[in-house]
Amino acid sequence: MNFNMNEAIEVLERTPQTLSTFLTGLSEAWLQSNEGDGTWNVTEVIDHLIEGEKTNWMPRLAFILEEGESKVFPPFDRFSHLSQKEDGTIKQKLLEFKALRIENMTRLKQLVDPEVHLGLTGRHPAFGQVRVRELLSAWVVHDLTHIRQIVRVMAERYRTDVGPWIEYLGILKK
Amino acid sequence: MNFNMNEAIEVLERTPQTLSTFLTGLSEAWLQSNEGDGTWNVTEVIDHLIEGEKTNWMPRLAFILEEGESKVFPPFDRFSHLSQKEDGTIKQKLLEFKALRIENMTRLKQLVDPEVHLGLTGRHPAFGQVRVRELLSAWVVHDLTHIRQIVRVMAERYRTDVGPWIEYLGILKK
Repeated sequence: MNFNMNEAIEVLERTPQTLSTFLTGLSEAWLQSNEGDGTWNVTEVIDHLIEGEKTNWMPRLAFILEEGESKVFPPFDRFSHLSQKEDGTIKQKLLEFKALRIENMTRLKQLVDPEVHLGLTGRHPAFGQVRVRELLSAWVVHDLTHIRQIVRVMAERYRTDVGPWIEYLGILKK
Repeated sequence: MNFNMNEAIEVLERTPQTLSTFLTGLSEAWLQSNEGDGTWNVTEVIDHLIEGEKTNWMPRLAFILEEGESKVFPPFDRFSHLSQKEDGTIKQKLLEFKALRIENMTRLKQLVDPEVHLGLTGRHPAFGQVRVRELLSAWVVHDLTHIRQIVRVMAERYRTDVGPWIEYLGILKK
């Protein structure tokens, strides 16, 4: 086990500004391209991250702290951002993500004392018993998995353009 | 084919500051961990990106423009950063990467007229004939592949910490 709350917060606090630095001002060609039918473009990934701040990670954490294992988490639709498309430029979306994340980090630090709460358990609709420590670890890795998705989606645009270099570029291996 | 020089430069210009925003100030635990024997930690990935700015992409581009297919590129050791470890903090390394990239982007814009030079060919030691367009595309995707590597290496630290959430976290699929 490697989880440490301060180290987890280091990553969670950096993700929005990192994505802002990378994506703000990019051409629409980078932001709108995807990996084929039924896959997300970069803008849709940001919509999903915003949705997660509002309805997934922090609400579930608060639910564990209040209810323990007595009630199952309210279910969370991981695809709701696809049916309720948000308006706004990528810059606005990234600012929204950042504002929500700052608010959630403030609340996290208020609610969770790592000496006391990390082992508390709740009941996940699919997984059954889960711990605060696992939820916080998953939140960090969820950020990392979507940063990875963003760069993979962007790399896909140049699949044929790289010519023979494809052999050295692991991101284009299927 | 999707390559467009201005769009490629958009990504190449953003990578160093993106990595700086994400990595500067992170705990050593994030920067020093790797995926097992013979794999790179985050700091070693930055060393590799610095080395690429110095000896790979721009020198090879200039070589194509000067020599065409008449001479094979001087070979480039993709692992040299592992034997010649650079001193310095991650912050210093990221500043070095950024300074080198800025210099290389200035030179790229001076040397390459996209109306004229993208189809020019050189001779790669392993691949044979390669085009300027392919080299520039590969440079972009090389950035993306190493951003992906960085987040994958970091996610690996929490492989067991995420508990049952591993099922939803694609980055931990092997």
